[in-house]
Amino acid sequence: MKNLMRIVAVCLTTATLVPAHAQFAKPEDAVKYRKASYTVMAAHFGRLGAMANGRVPYDAKLAAENAELVVALAKLPWTAYGEGTDKGETRAKPEIWKEAAKFKEAADKMQAEVGKLNVAAKAGNVDALKAAFGPAAASCKACHDNFRKD
Amino acid sequence: MKNLMRIVAVCLTTATLVPAHAQFAKPEDAVKYRKASYTVMAAHFGRLGAMANGRVPYDAKLAAENAELVVALAKLPWTAYGEGTDKGETRAKPEIWKEAAKFKEAADKMQAEVGKLNVAAKAGNVDALKAAFGPAAASCKACHDNFRKD
Repeated sequence: MKNLMRIVAVCLTTATLVPAHAQFAKPEDAVKYRKASYTVMAAHFGRLGAMANGRVPYDAKLAAENAELVVALAKLPWTAYGEGTDKGETRAKPEIWKEAAKFKEAADKMQAEVGKLNVAAKAGNVDALKAAFGPAAASCKACHDNFRKD
Repeated sequence: MKNLMRIVAVCLTTATLVPAHAQFAKPEDAVKYRKASYTVMAAHFGRLGAMANGRVPYDAKLAAENAELVVALAKLPWTAYGEGTDKGETRAKPEIWKEAAKFKEAADKMQAEVGKLNVAAKAGNVDALKAAFGPAAASCKACHDNFRKD
């Protein structure tokens, strides 16, 4: 298990902002941080969804700003799955560590899709946003389905 | 009280990314969002502090990346103090709404200081970071002291 954790940490780090070591004083800090990053990301992703689905009027500037935030936030959670963070106040499934390569793939996929969403949001038309929103939402859902407890 | 809330909402909105209306389905969503944005901001602010205080080696690239995140996150919480968000799982003091102008001032001060911190972090030397970190940290503390329960 310890080796697997190490592999996850190494794999995930390659895609992330900063090295995983020494970032969190305690595992529970990492859990709190990753949940918080998803919470903020989801809020801004939801605002793009509201525009894409016509629940609120399309606003090119707001779409671009929200997408930019989603992209920045999407980079953050991955360093926070280090050793000891499989316990406590978390819905993370053991598969995150048991199937580390699959989890990394899902994390990369989400980042790729929100990257495309960001490009689409900056295109300045709602159709581009609509086209990119679905695949991005699907990439969130895929990870939730496989790696998050209900 | 309702009028005060409205004033807070209007004041805060001027400094923020997106209009306050229709952003959160329920007040508790707003509370969760603002707490999450502070959690993520504090983690990245803490990484700058660790460099400024010599607990971890200075790394110009990481300093710049963390400061950029802090600036982006510092813009977020202010739309999430709308009506009904003074209750529930929050340490927000009633003074946030009772002394709305003072709260706005503290929020603006923090954003100004982390803006300076961002400039300093990009200067590429630890002394600039050290000089800007203290005032930024003080601006966080001032708000906590006045507007957050222990």
